[in-house]
Amino acid sequence: MGDPSTWDGADALHPFDDAITLTPSGDNTYTGETSPAYQNMVGPYGGITAATLLQAVQQHPERLGVPVSLTVNYAGPVADGKFTVTARPARTNRSTQHWSLELTQDDTVVTTATAVYAVRRETWAATETVMPEFPAPEDAALTPMPDFVQWAKNYEMRFLEGLLPTVEGAESPDSTTTLWVRDSPARELDFPALASLCDVFYPRVFLRRGQAMPAGTITLTIYFHADAAALEAQGDRPVLARARSNRFGHGYFDQSAQLWGRDGALLATTHQLVYFKG
Amino acid sequence: MGDPSTWDGADALHPFDDAITLTPSGDNTYTGETSPAYQNMVGPYGGITAATLLQAVQQHPERLGVPVSLTVNYAGPVADGKFTVTARPARTNRSTQHWSLELTQDDTVVTTATAVYAVRRETWAATETVMPEFPAPEDAALTPMPDFVQWAKNYEMRFLEGLLPTVEGAESPDSTTTLWVRDSPARELDFPALASLCDVFYPRVFLRRGQAMPAGTITLTIYFHADAAALEAQGDRPVLARARSNRFGHGYFDQSAQLWGRDGALLATTHQLVYFKG
Repeated sequence: MGDPSTWDGADALHPFDDAITLTPSGDNTYTGETSPAYQNMVGPYGGITAATLLQAVQQHPERLGVPVSLTVNYAGPVADGKFTVTARPARTNRSTQHWSLELTQDDTVVTTATAVYAVRRETWAATETVMPEFPAPEDAALTPMPDFVQWAKNYEMRFLEGLLPTVEGAESPDSTTTLWVRDSPARELDFPALASLCDVFYPRVFLRRGQAMPAGTITLTIYFHADAAALEAQGDRPVLARARSNRFGHGYFDQSAQLWGRDGALLATTHQLVYFKG
Repeated sequence: MGDPSTWDGADALHPFDDAITLTPSGDNTYTGETSPAYQNMVGPYGGITAATLLQAVQQHPERLGVPVSLTVNYAGPVADGKFTVTARPARTNRSTQHWSLELTQDDTVVTTATAVYAVRRETWAATETVMPEFPAPEDAALTPMPDFVQWAKNYEMRFLEGLLPTVEGAESPDSTTTLWVRDSPARELDFPALASLCDVFYPRVFLRRGQAMPAGTITLTIYFHADAAALEAQGDRPVLARARSNRFGHGYFDQSAQLWGRDGALLATTHQLVYFKG
């Protein structure tokens, strides 16, 4: 496992690539291992699990095209150590492909997922949800995250609004957070890295309630608007990421988010449902 | 199959209940049949397929709690006639349950899905996405849909903005549609009916481009904010439904939508990715 602070790009695997490394172990089956670098409160950061599942399809010999959607259901915490990913092409059409995925440990289902891949083509295009105006990343200060949040050390974050509450009990009437974010050390954006970035927001209920409490993503969906060319154009530049909740109640809240890249390109829209206790 | 125009509630099955009827045919396995009443351009209306998959979990003997999320991937058109639904509880925790679902015909996967169920409990609550102000349903005119859209005859729609374009080529700068909608004939809202309503919007690209073109939902996700008590309070009243797209391009567009009920309760938020050609 690479150490982010000493990674030099040329000689060692980037910690992100190390974390999502999968070894084929049979038809549609891969083995991986949790990375201490992406540790969260209970098990790994949800974004790295999403990226790992997508990676299984990315390296599958039967893959068609690029991801257009991914849904990941977090059924239970991933224990430290080895895990198995199964990636089954449930149906392959002329220009689309549907994947059924599972992450298991000791034959227990830990995560389920589905993905849709497609061969993309030129069509009429328009973006309605335009990138909001904020200072450029070079004019925004780096935001430190609490030291015990291990996974966050892999991201360079520059919060623009909706910072993690520091004064206990200071409630907010709005759950919006906007930040510039990229991998740390910097890394060219690809589909797994974009998938991981989609889960970068701390739980919206912390912001509304002005305090931390038990909370965790139970299901995450990503729509990839970027194709391979858009990712290449993005390179290792920061992405503008914005999230907001629609409703909190009865133990769950939802969250909708957008990630924009270079020239205001909307790279992904992503939604999740989060369990909370409090 | 009931005829909507003559349904009298007391003696016959409501056409919605007829369409989602499933017969157990083995462990985790059910058989159903497409309903001519919910026919769309190619195969059935996507909402009725989503409702049918949810219904498999609803009537499964191992079900825990109520649905909190559902993702349906439309892998291919459902052919007229019989189909098989498999509903597997992939993991059951103390208060959550994860389901893996498939709809097959002649052993070919037609639809894949996942659902999360949960035992809901009282917590802090807040709604950020409040119901927009519009005339009450009784003050809004019924909107006829084109006669060839068979499935739409099962819904009483009162469009408030973003009507289906009637003047060919009249483009719109915004993809928002808002309408009052309920089952026709009226029917008490339950989870399958709410799931079906989440797909009630005609493709956003028609509105933007001012014309119909080949288009179809490829994946749909629903977050259920309503619990059983909220559905009971809703009864058979119309729901205010609003949808908008974030980005169109490279053959796909996304859509995010909200459905509000009585007293402005946000019953569900729902997202989809739609294929289009044009």
